[in-house]
Amino acid sequence: MLRSCAKLLRTLGAVRGPPGGRRLPGSEPRPALRLFSSEEVILRDYSVPNPSWNKDLRLLFDQFMKKCEDSSWKRLPSYKRIPAEKIQDFKTHLLDPKLMKEEQMSQTQLFTRSFDDGLGFEYVMFYSDVEKRMVCLFQGGPYLEGPPGFVHGGAIATMIDTTIGMCALMAGGVVVTANLNINYKRPIPLCSAVMINSQLDKVEGRKFFVSCNVQSADEKTLYSEATNAEVEANLGFVSGSSWLHIPNFQHQDSLPLRDDQHRSA
Amino acid sequence: MLRSCAKLLRTLGAVRGPPGGRRLPGSEPRPALRLFSSEEVILRDYSVPNPSWNKDLRLLFDQFMKKCEDSSWKRLPSYKRIPAEKIQDFKTHLLDPKLMKEEQMSQTQLFTRSFDDGLGFEYVMFYSDVEKRMVCLFQGGPYLEGPPGFVHGGAIATMIDTTIGMCALMAGGVVVTANLNINYKRPIPLCSAVMINSQLDKVEGRKFFVSCNVQSADEKTLYSEATNAEVEANLGFVSGSSWLHIPNFQHQDSLPLRDDQHRSA
Repeated sequence: MLRSCAKLLRTLGAVRGPPGGRRLPGSEPRPALRLFSSEEVILRDYSVPNPSWNKDLRLLFDQFMKKCEDSSWKRLPSYKRIPAEKIQDFKTHLLDPKLMKEEQMSQTQLFTRSFDDGLGFEYVMFYSDVEKRMVCLFQGGPYLEGPPGFVHGGAIATMIDTTIGMCALMAGGVVVTANLNINYKRPIPLCSAVMINSQLDKVEGRKFFVSCNVQSADEKTLYSEATNAEVEANLGFVSGSSWLHIPNFQHQDSLPLRDDQHRSA
Repeated sequence: MLRSCAKLLRTLGAVRGPPGGRRLPGSEPRPALRLFSSEEVILRDYSVPNPSWNKDLRLLFDQFMKKCEDSSWKRLPSYKRIPAEKIQDFKTHLLDPKLMKEEQMSQTQLFTRSFDDGLGFEYVMFYSDVEKRMVCLFQGGPYLEGPPGFVHGGAIATMIDTTIGMCALMAGGVVVTANLNINYKRPIPLCSAVMINSQLDKVEGRKFFVSCNVQSADEKTLYSEATNAEVEANLGFVSGSSWLHIPNFQHQDSLPLRDDQHRSA
């Protein structure tokens, strides 16, 4: 289930883009999120190499950056959090003071960016609008351990969920994952670089169907597959027992795909 | 995919129990893991209340501890990691020095225990051998955030995976998750207590089928469901491109269930 700050902020009109969440052709990823009308906060973009990245991850990063040169692919920036004071009013609608102490509310961090460099999820995503493909380059650090030496299956599910969610988000707007079906083939060694490939297969009304696989950097080993993950355009968020309606939602009933991009369910 | 230290250590004969991974009737959970023949390391058991646990989680914990009094249910202890020096020889078989620096090898932590108290996964599991049920009481901290105020879908998948894996492990021995199919119904508020109920449905040869749902503490809200998750008895681990055979594996082809516990696939 993709649940990123960027997504909900886009829904709320905080990060504005063209209707339907699409980027204008040739437009570059923003260097920083624009928060609400007048305030701008520069946050560190985590989807660039740091000293913990291994050689394979750096090589893959360079390859995809090369693909970005003609704008057919875009690198997606990624942030740890938005300072609490900047979204205080917004948060008070979503955080439950009965559940969270004030201190906890100011501590929230995006799950996939909540570890220090090199310890947890190291990743960068690249998107091709023409192909409706999202590729995530990922290296799982020592804090993601399941069995000794291997990445926990839940950490793999997290990255698959994030990648397919971002794929649907970029292609069609605000989404939440409704169904995630993962086949685990082989365990992923800790600190190895893998490539998570997701592809928008088809759109049916509000539903986006996205497939995904996780391969080794040399593409010789298939680690996991997610088949026909169902991602739904989101019309609201549940808050407690009632639905909280989100303003400014631009719903797109259908999305034009090339004929060869349609696959059967 | 359950990938816990305890699981692999059991496979390797480090944590010895009755054949097939079953506990002797009436036996208590161990206060600490016994590591290899003569060495014993006392590690902090994280599956007990700490100051970050909210009232609901504490109430549920007390209710289940009450159920443990007649030994029909057992609380499962849970550890962050096993000190590197204690499993150095073991680790060298599984960690790839080409991928990991020595410093990283000594930093590994079980993913679900890799956050400080209250920030990430707070949970405790209880198992009923008679019912073949595992219940995980879980509270997701502020570092597990997806959309503002809610637990990331990947963190939910992680806890479902861990719970169904532990259910199959307790019922039948060493396992890895082969397939995980999750339907997300409603987002889970950060810092709320939820109950993850898993049930061993049937066993077919090496395959264990486990169902699971995630409910609010008052059982009125269904957050997620995992249907027919397929967990396989594990005969070995992949290391690079070759299979690493694990000694002392006790394979159990079939597991007696009560008739009413069998469900169709």
